Amino acid sequence: MPKVLFLPHNKSIRVHAGDNVIRAAMEAGVHINASCGGEGLCGKCRVIIEQGEVEGGVTEKLDPPDVAKGVRQACLAVVKGDLVVRVPVESAVDESVLNMQSTPRSTARIKVVNFEDLKDKGLFVPPVEKKYLELPAPTTSDNLADASRLVSFLKLKHNEHFLEVDLSVIQKIPAIIRADNFKVTATLARPVRENSKTRIINIQSGDTSDRNYAVAIDVGTTTVYGQVIDLKSGETLAQYGDFNAQISYGDDVITRIVYTEKPGGLEKLNQVVIGTINKVLEKIIRKAGVALDDISTITLAGNTTMTQILLKVDPRYIRLSPYVPASILYPPIKASELGMNLGDHATALVFPGVSSYVGGDIVAGVMGSGMYLSDELTLYMDIGTNAEIVIGNKDWLACAACSAGPAFEGGGIKLGMRATQGAIEDFSMDPVTFEPMIITIGNVRPKGICGSGLIIMAATMFEMGIIDNLGKFDRDLDTPRIRQTDGIYEYVVAWSDETQIERDVVLTEPDIDNLIRAKGAMHSGFMTLLEEVGLGVDQIDRIILAGGFGSYVDLEKAMTIGLLPETDTDKVTFIGNGSLMGARMSALTNRIRKDVWEVTKKMTNFELSETASYMDNYIAALFLPHTDMAKFPKLKKRLDDRRKASRLSPRRPGSA
Amino acid sequence: MPKVLFLPHNKSIRVHAGDNVIRAAMEAGVHINASCGGEGLCGKCRVIIEQGEVEGGVTEKLDPPDVAKGVRQACLAVVKGDLVVRVPVESAVDESVLNMQSTPRSTARIKVVNFEDLKDKGLFVPPVEKKYLELPAPTTSDNLADASRLVSFLKLKHNEHFLEVDLSVIQKIPAIIRADNFKVTATLARPVRENSKTRIINIQSGDTSDRNYAVAIDVGTTTVYGQVIDLKSGETLAQYGDFNAQISYGDDVITRIVYTEKPGGLEKLNQVVIGTINKVLEKIIRKAGVALDDISTITLAGNTTMTQILLKVDPRYIRLSPYVPASILYPPIKASELGMNLGDHATALVFPGVSSYVGGDIVAGVMGSGMYLSDELTLYMDIGTNAEIVIGNKDWLACAACSAGPAFEGGGIKLGMRATQGAIEDFSMDPVTFEPMIITIGNVRPKGICGSGLIIMAATMFEMGIIDNLGKFDRDLDTPRIRQTDGIYEYVVAWSDETQIERDVVLTEPDIDNLIRAKGAMHSGFMTLLEEVGLGVDQIDRIILAGGFGSYVDLEKAMTIGLLPETDTDKVTFIGNGSLMGARMSALTNRIRKDVWEVTKKMTNFELSETASYMDNYIAALFLPHTDMAKFPKLKKRLDDRRKASRLSPRRPGSA
Repeated sequence: MPKVLFLPHNKSIRVHAGDNVIRAAMEAGVHINASCGGEGLCGKCRVIIEQGEVEGGVTEKLDPPDVAKGVRQACLAVVKGDLVVRVPVESAVDESVLNMQSTPRSTARIKVVNFEDLKDKGLFVPPVEKKYLELPAPTTSDNLADASRLVSFLKLKHNEHFLEVDLSVIQKIPAIIRADNFKVTATLARPVRENSKTRIINIQSGDTSDRNYAVAIDVGTTTVYGQVIDLKSGETLAQYGDFNAQISYGDDVITRIVYTEKPGGLEKLNQVVIGTINKVLEKIIRKAGVALDDISTITLAGNTTMTQILLKVDPRYIRLSPYVPASILYPPIKASELGMNLGDHATALVFPGVSSYVGGDIVAGVMGSGMYLSDELTLYMDIGTNAEIVIGNKDWLACAACSAGPAFEGGGIKLGMRATQGAIEDFSMDPVTFEPMIITIGNVRPKGICGSGLIIMAATMFEMGIIDNLGKFDRDLDTPRIRQTDGIYEYVVAWSDETQIERDVVLTEPDIDNLIRAKGAMHSGFMTLLEEVGLGVDQIDRIILAGGFGSYVDLEKAMTIGLLPETDTDKVTFIGNGSLMGARMSALTNRIRKDVWEVTKKMTNFELSETASYMDNYIAALFLPHTDMAKFPKLKKRLDDRRKASRLSPRRPGSA
Repeated sequence: MPKVLFLPHNKSIRVHAGDNVIRAAMEAGVHINASCGGEGLCGKCRVIIEQGEVEGGVTEKLDPPDVAKGVRQACLAVVKGDLVVRVPVESAVDESVLNMQSTPRSTARIKVVNFEDLKDKGLFVPPVEKKYLELPAPTTSDNLADASRLVSFLKLKHNEHFLEVDLSVIQKIPAIIRADNFKVTATLARPVRENSKTRIINIQSGDTSDRNYAVAIDVGTTTVYGQVIDLKSGETLAQYGDFNAQISYGDDVITRIVYTEKPGGLEKLNQVVIGTINKVLEKIIRKAGVALDDISTITLAGNTTMTQILLKVDPRYIRLSPYVPASILYPPIKASELGMNLGDHATALVFPGVSSYVGGDIVAGVMGSGMYLSDELTLYMDIGTNAEIVIGNKDWLACAACSAGPAFEGGGIKLGMRATQGAIEDFSMDPVTFEPMIITIGNVRPKGICGSGLIIMAATMFEMGIIDNLGKFDRDLDTPRIRQTDGIYEYVVAWSDETQIERDVVLTEPDIDNLIRAKGAMHSGFMTLLEEVGLGVDQIDRIILAGGFGSYVDLEKAMTIGLLPETDTDKVTFIGNGSLMGARMSALTNRIRKDVWEVTKKMTNFELSETASYMDNYIAALFLPHTDMAKFPKLKKRLDDRRKASRLSPRRPGSA
C-alpha cells in the first residue's frame, strides 16, 4: 500500500493504490477544500505533488505552468505509489491549528471468519454432511429393504447410529440406489439436540460428496440478501441482494403489519417476500453454478415481523401494546413447504427471536459474531431506524430495541438520502474558513447526505465550535455558508452549481436535532441496559457494530456525538450484515443450531418503553455528546486543546 | 339366550333369539336336510316344534294338519324362546350314528379390547392428549410470545417439559389465544422415543378437551376400512369399509405393481387409494359426528405394496427377485401432506413392515393382538391369498409370507365366490343319505361356495369318508349327488332349481385339490417356521387368526383338513381385521408406537421360497389332513370311532 505524506501537516497515511488524493487526505485527517464530490468541478482541491506520481488531476481549471510545478486537482489525482503532497493553506493558519482541522478517519475493523481457526477449534462442522457409499447389491439371502441397506451400511462402516430416513429419500431410493449399481451419496443432517437422530435427507447416485452447499438468507425489511456457501471449503460462492418486494406495501414493519390486517394481506405479503427470496435464490444459485439437488440446507434470519410474514403468521399483535409476537422459536420446516424453490430435502432453519422488536436477525448476529461464547463483556449494536442493542457475554445477555427514527438512514433530514451514489459520506472543514471538504459515494457531485455523512458533519462542526452542544449554529460566524432560510439556520455543504440537484445541499438545525434524538435513543438504549445489569460503560470490553449503516461510520465521530460510548476504537469491530453473517455461520457450524435456542432463552429482553430510566437517559443524551461530559474524557481533552489553540489563532476554531 | 334342544339327538345349544332353527341345528351339530339356503324353497327341512314357540316356518309346502302338530320349515322358523325340536330321521339311523352326523360348530373366540384392563395396566394412554388451559393475559410487564405463554404455563402448571410447538399452531395461535380471552385447549402429541419432545400440534379456543378423536385405517388390497375412535372412552364411534378403488387397476398386488410401472401409473394408483381413504374418512367422520379439528391423529396399516403406493414410493422391486421393498420404516408424516382430508395437525403413523410380503398390516396385527408382549408362544395367521404367518412371543418373532393361492377367497374354485350374499358358508351332511344341509350368507338361495364353506365341506366329506385323504370322491357310493361331469368327479351341493344361478352348485375334485394346495402352503408355512426356530406344534400356546376369512371358519374343520395344527379350539382367538385392530390399538395406547420399530427389527423374516424345507413340508401337507396322521390324534380317534360305528349301521358312514 502506497504511503502518502501530507505537508505542511506532516501527516502520512497508507492508502490503496487507486484511491484519489482527496480520500487519502480524509483518511489522514487532512483538510482540503473540496465541495463538488470529486468530479473536478469546483476546482478548489488544488494540491502540489512534491514527490511521486499520480495519474490524472490535470484539468483546464489549472494553468499549464502550475501543472508543470506539480499542481493537481486532488479529487481527480489517483495515487499510484508513495507520494509527498503539499496542501496550500492560509498563511494565517499555524501548525497547531493545521492539525486540529480534522481527526484521522477511524473505521471499525471488519470481522472476517477465520476458517482455519474454526477448524482448529473443531467448530467447522456443517449441519449437513455427504457420505459416498458403495453398498453391496441385494441377493436372495440378503434382501434388506433399500433404506435398511443404506442405514445398516452407515452403521457398520461409518459408525453412524440413530439414523432416520426422510420420506422423500424413501420415495427416491429404489431408482437412485440402482442407477449406479448401488453406489450412492447420502446426505446426513446432524441433529440439533444431543441424542436425537441423524436424518438421511437426500440420496444421489454415484459420488457427489464434493458438492455440498448451503444457502443463507437475510430477510430484511428493505432488502433480502442471499449467499451460497460451499460446505467443503466454507467459501461464499455467490452473493446477491435485492429489494424486498414488500416495500411496495409499506416502508417499515408497522405499515407492513397494517397491510397484513387487510383481507388477504398476510397471504399477499408472504407471497411477495417468498417471490423475492426465490429471485435471490435463482441469481445466487446460477452465479455459484451449483445444482439444486446439492443444496442441502438453508438458514434464514429476519426481524420478528419479517419472520412471521415469511411463515404466514399473523403479525398484528407485534404492533399493539403489550407487543406480543406469536412465537420466538420455530420448528425446522421444509423450505419447499414455505414456497421456496429448493429441493424437497432442504430444511429451513429460521432463526428464533427474542421479542417483537428483537428478532432473529439480531439473534443471528449474536450467534454469528460469537459474542455468546466470549468471556468479554460485549456491546452489540445494530444501528438503524429500528435499532437493537445486546449487551452480555457467555454467561448472560440483555437486549432491547429502540426506535431511533430514520435519521441514520437519511430520513427526516432535509437533504438526507440512503447511502447510494451521490450521498456525502465523508466531510471535513477548514477551522478558519469553514470551507468544507466532501467525499461522495461514487465520486460524483453531491445529491444529499447519508447517515454516516451526517454523523461526521455534526461531529466535525461540534468539535470546530460551529454548532454548540444543543446542535445550534453559532449565529456570529462570518461565513456565507451559515445562513438562515425561512427562519431556519443551515450550513451550505455544496452550492447548487456543484450539485446534481440544482439546489444547495444544506445541513439544517432541525436535521441536527433529528440526529441528536436518534443518537440519544441509541445512547439511552445501551445506558439503560447497562444500568439494568448494574454495569458501566468502562466495563465494556468490545463493541460490535452491525447493519449496513455501520460499515463506514467514523468511530471517533460517532463517539464525539455520543452515538457510541467513548472507548478505544480498537475495541470496535464491524460485522456488516449481522443477520446474514449469522445465517451463514449456522451453515458452517452446527454448534450455532445447537446453541441458539438456549441463547434465545438466555437473552433477557427489556422493553425500554416500560423501563423507567430510559426516558431520563434519553433526555440526558439530547446533548452533544451528553449532559455528562465526564463520560467523554478524550473528547473533553480535545475540545480543551482546541480552545487553547484558538487563543493563538486570529480566527476562532474551538470557540464553542 | 334361548336354549334349543334337538331330539332324538338330545343335543342342546343356546342361540340368539332371532336365529332360525337351521342355524341353531348347525351350531349344535345336528343335521337337517336343507339345500335351498333358507328360502323355504326346497321344503326338505321339516322339523316338529315339540315345546316352545317359533315365528314363521309355515308355508304352503306343509299340510295344515302337520302344521297343527307343530311341523315347521326349520329354515323359516325363527327362535323366540326355549324350544324342543324333533328332527325326523331315517328309522335305520340309530343314535350312535346320529351323533356323528356333524360336530358342533366351533368358531374362534373373538378377541375384544378390554379397556378396563388396559387402564389398569396403565396402557390406555393415547398418543395425543388435550389440555384445557386458562392462560394469564399478557401485560406490559409480561409480554411473552403467545407460544411461549402456552409452553410456560404447561411447564409451570402441568409439569410438561420438552415441548415443541408446530408451525401450524404458531400460525393459528395469535387469533385462537385471543378468541376466548386466553382460554385455550392444547393438543399434545406424546413422543414415541423416550427423551424426545412432546409436540403441541393443535390449539383451539375454549374448552374442547372432551372431544379428542383418532382415525384408524386399514389399507387393504381389496378393501379400505376406517374407524373413528373416541380417545376419552376408547370406543369406536363409526366404522366403514369400501372397496379400494385400485381394484379397477388389478385384483392383486402384483397386477397393481405392474400398473405402477406405466408412465404416471404410480401417481394414478396413489391418487385412487387416497380417494378411497378420503371417501371412507368422510363417511366415518360424518357418522361419528365429530369435527375435523378434533381428530388429532391417524394410523394406517397396509401390506408393503399398498403402503408404498400410499406413500408414492415405486413398488416395482417388490415383485422382482430378490423382492426388496424400498423401506420397512416410515417417518411420521402429516396426513394432509399425503393428500388426506384431515386437519393440518394430524400426523399419520404408517405401520412399518418387515419385508416385501410381510407388511405393516401384519405388524399391526402382531402389535394390536399383544402377542409381542406375551410369554406364550403364539402362532399368528392371516389367512388369505397372500397369507402371512408369525410365530413367537415377547422375546422373539419369526415371520413369513406364503402364497396360498385364491382358494380361501373362492378363487380357482368352480363355483367359488367371496363371502357375500348367497355364498354357502356352512354345511353338514347326512352320513347315510349324503343329503346336505347348507346355510348361505343372507339366508338366500345359494350362488356358490365361499372359503369357509369350502373348508367345512371338504372336512365333513373327509370325515364321512366321501372323499379320501387325497381329496378324491369314493367312486362306489350310491347317490345321485356324486357324479362325473366331463370326466371330473363332483358333489352336487344344490340342484339348479334351488339356486340363484339356474345351474347346479357343485364341489369338484379340482376344487378340493386347490383347497389342499392352499392349506398345504399354510401348513408348510407354519411348520417350516417352527422348524427354523427348533419348535414343534405341541409347543404352541395360542393361535391368533386374522383376516376377513378367519371370522367364520369352523376351527375343528380347519384342523380336520390340516389348515390349522390340531390343538384345543380354546387356544384359538380371532381378531378379525388385524391390520385395523392394530391401527386402532395404536391410537389407544402410545406403547404400540413406542414399541413398533423395535418389534419390526425383532421380526425375523424367512423367505420361504429360499428355505429348503418349505417344499418338503408342502409336499407332506398335500394330504388330508397330512401324511403324518400322528400329528392329528384327535381326528384319528374320531375317524376310528366312526369306523367302528359304521360296522353297526346298515349303510357305511366312516367307511374311508
